[in-house]
Amino acid sequence: MSIEPFDVVDLIRVKRDRGALTTPQIDWLVDAYTRGYVADEQMSAMAMAIFLNGMGRDEIRDLTLAMIASGERMSFDALSKPTVDKHSTGGVGDKITLPLAPLVASFGVAVPQLSGRGLGHTGGTLDKLESIPGWRAGLSNDELLAQLDDVGAVICAAGAGLAPADKKLYALRDITGTVECIPLIASSIMSKKIAEGTAALVLDVKFGSGAFMQDPARSRELAETMVRLGTDAGVATVALLTNMNVPLGLAIGNANEVRESVEVLAGGGPADVVELTVALAREMLALAGQPDADVERHLADGKAMDTWRAMIAAQDGDPDAPLPAPREQHVVTADRDGVVTRMEALPFGIAAWRLGAGRARKEDPVLHAAGIDLAVKPGDEVRAGDPLFTLSADDDARFARALESLEGAYTIGAAGDDVETGGPLIADRITG
Amino acid sequence: MSIEPFDVVDLIRVKRDRGALTTPQIDWLVDAYTRGYVADEQMSAMAMAIFLNGMGRDEIRDLTLAMIASGERMSFDALSKPTVDKHSTGGVGDKITLPLAPLVASFGVAVPQLSGRGLGHTGGTLDKLESIPGWRAGLSNDELLAQLDDVGAVICAAGAGLAPADKKLYALRDITGTVECIPLIASSIMSKKIAEGTAALVLDVKFGSGAFMQDPARSRELAETMVRLGTDAGVATVALLTNMNVPLGLAIGNANEVRESVEVLAGGGPADVVELTVALAREMLALAGQPDADVERHLADGKAMDTWRAMIAAQDGDPDAPLPAPREQHVVTADRDGVVTRMEALPFGIAAWRLGAGRARKEDPVLHAAGIDLAVKPGDEVRAGDPLFTLSADDDARFARALESLEGAYTIGAAGDDVETGGPLIADRITG
Repeated sequence: MSIEPFDVVDLIRVKRDRGALTTPQIDWLVDAYTRGYVADEQMSAMAMAIFLNGMGRDEIRDLTLAMIASGERMSFDALSKPTVDKHSTGGVGDKITLPLAPLVASFGVAVPQLSGRGLGHTGGTLDKLESIPGWRAGLSNDELLAQLDDVGAVICAAGAGLAPADKKLYALRDITGTVECIPLIASSIMSKKIAEGTAALVLDVKFGSGAFMQDPARSRELAETMVRLGTDAGVATVALLTNMNVPLGLAIGNANEVRESVEVLAGGGPADVVELTVALAREMLALAGQPDADVERHLADGKAMDTWRAMIAAQDGDPDAPLPAPREQHVVTADRDGVVTRMEALPFGIAAWRLGAGRARKEDPVLHAAGIDLAVKPGDEVRAGDPLFTLSADDDARFARALESLEGAYTIGAAGDDVETGGPLIADRITG
Repeated sequence: MSIEPFDVVDLIRVKRDRGALTTPQIDWLVDAYTRGYVADEQMSAMAMAIFLNGMGRDEIRDLTLAMIASGERMSFDALSKPTVDKHSTGGVGDKITLPLAPLVASFGVAVPQLSGRGLGHTGGTLDKLESIPGWRAGLSNDELLAQLDDVGAVICAAGAGLAPADKKLYALRDITGTVECIPLIASSIMSKKIAEGTAALVLDVKFGSGAFMQDPARSRELAETMVRLGTDAGVATVALLTNMNVPLGLAIGNANEVRESVEVLAGGGPADVVELTVALAREMLALAGQPDADVERHLADGKAMDTWRAMIAAQDGDPDAPLPAPREQHVVTADRDGVVTRMEALPFGIAAWRLGAGRARKEDPVLHAAGIDLAVKPGDEVRAGDPLFTLSADDDARFARALESLEGAYTIGAAGDDVETGGPLIADRITG
């Protein structure tokens, strides 16, 4: 019989009764859960107790460090350039990583983007890139380091070795109603980023209808918690609080988001996507020692595009190959003259998901050509009969349920009506 | 793919966010958990959310009814006599079922006592009876009915068919820190009692150091909740709120508790055990239509003892066989002259458990001869060197840990000091 220093039921009771867990208790809990001594049903009771009773600063730090210690740590020390990473809490139409990574890398900075697949209404970066023929998400550590040295930008699947405790706990939270919890979200994100070994990190923490954390005050708390965790672990960390009430850009899906990203890299693209890409690039480059980098120039002069093409090609993708096209499309038009005063991100995200752009279960495939292309955004004038957006799917049976989720999701008002966007795109900046 | 009417994550979120579950939601949840569609880790998150956010009256009623519906229902309608059942929430030295069932049955009433085994510091009725050579806890339904008709009293193991949802949920709560929760305790106890088909029920709800619910106000709330559930389900239900600050009687263990029960049935025994046995018997007989039964007489004239002997013999036990004796004993004596002013039930329960009288895990055996015999109770005068209590075990290596838990568990004060018992044995009576 092995001697365990703690009884997990005692620790659950501590958290249940609003107490604080000690460093050795959290270290043991995470280790015992990773090796299967603490059972899923015990950890889910603990997660619900954490959800409802919270965790103090020290507990969140201990949880993050324990999850890092559950797996391997990477190091980019051997690279000849500085590294800077970025993480977004996810939103509807959020393809920013695609133009951002090559843009920043075009300044000689290494940008490792270890990404995941999407679940539910927020898309996954790897799902989007996999719509490019030939492109592969899986790289060995050696391939990753070589590509960072050579191209500078890498977007690839996170290996199983980083923070395996987090991987296990995240899957559990997903099926036990314990996802939207600041201590658990912050420690989950930051354990992976710190274990990955980046020197600097910029966080895009979203609030509003299409974000995980809809309430701005709670997303601010999440941002502050993560910035503190990063700073304390020696990672230079900055967060932008950004508005996710309206879909980002005009494309929501996979292939169409790649297309929109390429437009941005070609110096065009929707204003909001450009604004956020540029703002995040400035933050990343500042942390990498280039506060005065002329970000817009590398979008205009093709340098960012060159890095994009090299990045895609290095992972066996063909940057010139045509992207998958949908079999069926359905255009929704304006039923009156007026101004688009509201487009709510969440129902658009759910509609794209129902069209096949996202997955309900981990093992489901995504349809790369499925999604929504907006013809207008809030503030735009329309005339009756003008297209508002186009739904794309492989099977027109999907349109009915997508349209159902879009009922009441947008408003065409009269000229002069308030346009509801929930404020500016970038609401605030949080530093350590 | 089966069509499920609800998503368990949605239901967990409702309870997590302090909402109320509807009748169809609770019916589905319990059914889906019983058939394994809802996983243990999901039910444990739900149990923790219920623990922390509570349940309304309607939800507790729905949960109880859904657990009853998860299994078979028994019926005692075919019997020629009235049935009345008793349940105790458990305590230290609580052997009351043993003298009570034959005492009440000696008045021509059927007393079915479907019981469990002990876990942790509170003993199990079946564990105690199994110290009688030959006695068997398992009866078929036919054997149970025949013995109720013939002898009147049956104490046996509850079959697996009654409220299987409760069985599954109880085992889960035990390992996830979600035991001490009124909605879950009340629905667990009452689902089994209602499914069992008794016409009337007397509850012994304990408070104080040795009880599950230490706080008197919370144990009152538990009693009121259970009385309401029983009454609403057509079972005439009464509860006594009883004091579990001091061990009940002088014996804590298994064989020694049988011995003490036989003393009570022979017209003797400790005053507190007699008092509670008589009070509960009066309540049970009143519900069975005999409010004026002369309970003490059947203890004095051997009628209750005759029923005990018949009850034990009907289950292949030998009422005359010697009970198991311990291999090792250790006597603790008074270190000064004075008065015993305090003996706290919980540490005595834990000490008996550590001596081997109870089990840490379901699959562990109990040592029938292990336990504690008190020589004194609070209020008794002692002289230095007088025995206070005797520890019994099969192995004297067990004494050290038992003595450790008894440190500070009792006080010898000066004559005239307050004796701390936490009030009278029977604190209140709760009716529908």
